[in-house]
Amino acid sequence: MWDIAENLGAMLIFAEHRYYGESLPFGQDSYSDSKHLNYLTSEQALADFAVLIRELKSSIPGARLSPVIAIGGSYGGMLSAWLRMKYPNVVVGALAASAPIWQFPGMVPCGDFYKIVTMDFAKSGFDCDVNIRRSWKAVDNISSTAPGLQWLSEEFSLCAPLKNNQDSIGFKAWLQESWVNLAMVDYPYQASFLQPLPAWPIKAACKHLSFSSAVSDYSLLRGVSEAVKVYYNFTGNTPCLNTSQTATGSLGFLGWYYQACTEMVMPMCTDGVQDMFEPQEWDFQAFSDECHALFGVRPRADWAETAYGGKDIRSHSNIIFSNGGLDPWSGGGVTRNMSDSLVAIVIPDGAHHLDLRYNNERDPPSVRAARALEVKYFKEWITEAAAAA
Amino acid sequence: MWDIAENLGAMLIFAEHRYYGESLPFGQDSYSDSKHLNYLTSEQALADFAVLIRELKSSIPGARLSPVIAIGGSYGGMLSAWLRMKYPNVVVGALAASAPIWQFPGMVPCGDFYKIVTMDFAKSGFDCDVNIRRSWKAVDNISSTAPGLQWLSEEFSLCAPLKNNQDSIGFKAWLQESWVNLAMVDYPYQASFLQPLPAWPIKAACKHLSFSSAVSDYSLLRGVSEAVKVYYNFTGNTPCLNTSQTATGSLGFLGWYYQACTEMVMPMCTDGVQDMFEPQEWDFQAFSDECHALFGVRPRADWAETAYGGKDIRSHSNIIFSNGGLDPWSGGGVTRNMSDSLVAIVIPDGAHHLDLRYNNERDPPSVRAARALEVKYFKEWITEAAAAA
Repeated sequence: MWDIAENLGAMLIFAEHRYYGESLPFGQDSYSDSKHLNYLTSEQALADFAVLIRELKSSIPGARLSPVIAIGGSYGGMLSAWLRMKYPNVVVGALAASAPIWQFPGMVPCGDFYKIVTMDFAKSGFDCDVNIRRSWKAVDNISSTAPGLQWLSEEFSLCAPLKNNQDSIGFKAWLQESWVNLAMVDYPYQASFLQPLPAWPIKAACKHLSFSSAVSDYSLLRGVSEAVKVYYNFTGNTPCLNTSQTATGSLGFLGWYYQACTEMVMPMCTDGVQDMFEPQEWDFQAFSDECHALFGVRPRADWAETAYGGKDIRSHSNIIFSNGGLDPWSGGGVTRNMSDSLVAIVIPDGAHHLDLRYNNERDPPSVRAARALEVKYFKEWITEAAAAA
Repeated sequence: MWDIAENLGAMLIFAEHRYYGESLPFGQDSYSDSKHLNYLTSEQALADFAVLIRELKSSIPGARLSPVIAIGGSYGGMLSAWLRMKYPNVVVGALAASAPIWQFPGMVPCGDFYKIVTMDFAKSGFDCDVNIRRSWKAVDNISSTAPGLQWLSEEFSLCAPLKNNQDSIGFKAWLQESWVNLAMVDYPYQASFLQPLPAWPIKAACKHLSFSSAVSDYSLLRGVSEAVKVYYNFTGNTPCLNTSQTATGSLGFLGWYYQACTEMVMPMCTDGVQDMFEPQEWDFQAFSDECHALFGVRPRADWAETAYGGKDIRSHSNIIFSNGGLDPWSGGGVTRNMSDSLVAIVIPDGAHHLDLRYNNERDPPSVRAARALEVKYFKEWITEAAAAA
């Protein structure tokens, strides 16, 4: 956006989503209970953006007739697409980057997400996925004894030592989420989106995981430890690893979890065969019970499809869906053109919304081409809007 | 709908809007205060309809793949259009009959509504509009004395006699609303939409109002009394006229008034020159104060335009906007095609959503043609949907 704004004569506006960052409608009480959380919905957020855009256009000198394009990545990309769908009078088009608008029940197989993560590791080093798949049993074996738990805690430099079987389950979940996050941010250059990381971080991590099958549990997990520290300690300044956290800074985890527990129900599953994780079926009831325990709410599994159209979005227009081939979220993305003006772009070498990042000399040609195409569409929409005004 | 359903192989579903009729979310308390009324919005109603349609399609045998067309008149027509705009995945198209989707602030002149009412009376009898315009001053003159008030009360067979100046203001407002209602239901045959009425009721009323300019206030108001009784006492069974009511049965007046006081802000005004009423400017502040006094809420004048697109609805598709040339609400309707699939139909001899009524041998050719065209579009949408499925 910063790279192209001047060329397009554009003003950039970054709008904060209600209940995130400093946009707390009830201040400190915003997250206190479901009554206060009740206004945290994607529909309300879209209405905020629509009102904000109209307000800015009426109050900023010269902006009254300016066409507006919505741009966002991830959930922000979903919101961008939905803003165009629901308020086509407010935005002339949208770039929905790495927006998994089809990650809802019944739209894509629940296992696609983790299959893509696995593929990223499989192609980034010899038997990297195979060794991660083996590591779960190795953790089970070693964590079955007290000295084993102690060894794991020390080897992984954990801030809080593992004490029992329950802790080791949490430890495996944390490892799994670390691999997922690495897949999301597998960028071709050093970057600091979820964590400060080297270029192509999965390749860097997989260097520690290229064992043949004969390796011992201890050696294997020593490799896992080195690999996971590529993610958590690339700077060398991390004193210990905190298994209750997988990203630096606040991405508003609790807010997103509440949204997942109400409208944004995204089924995920693993089978341990087509992916490198322990088998875990999608269990809506368990998820619903967890939501109820945590927030006092139960998710409405079908609402996202009703509200946002699911696969039936052909009647909309002027939306670009860009997807990274390395990004697990591309499994729930729109990767084929739906019409002349609902356009899919796939960036085979791209991770999570790489196209939204600054231009970089190490950018693969596929993302350069994607950005050029995106700008071409932006210009078309602007021309269309000027003609219609 | 009943006339064409069989031919189209259609099931007819009539969904009741929340807070109207028996659909009271909090039972007797639904209207008790603004906290309980908070869920009465057009957006929530649209969501209800979307959820209902999906539920019916999934539960009624054989309905799963059936395309759905939204049909409605007046506010129901607005909802039909908006349902297609906001949930094009749920309905393949909409017939918005006499739907004043542009009756919101800044979209059409606030005086158009009453100009159309006036035109209806002007063309339905000699000087009919002129004499109604004169009648307001006559009411003022006569109601300025106690015997005059008594004479008026008796002449108009009022259930509650007029007692003072305040009552006579209310009396004039009631007369004005009666003329408006007559314009809405100026059908070519006997009908009972707002009241039981003869064919072409304005013509029947105007028979009593064809005075030359020399007439006295008393004679003029005797004529007004006869004319208004065409509306209130066509059956001859009305013992007295109740000035606090202008329609038989419940059209959910209070619910609509709350909606007008929140989202559905519809500016209206008169100038006494281009219309036959006493001049009255649109006063948003006064309206807002009235809303606050009554419901504890204040209207959001711009929200309807933000939410539903105002004049900028070109990106939508498959909506028919039908309008009656006699209907005052056509002033806020879409009367020109916006695109190949946003189609306007004008029925010059039609009052409020005449096209939605049963076929009748006295139907003017214009409404027969409109209905035929509507069915043609319905069939196209159904064919389109089948091709896309």
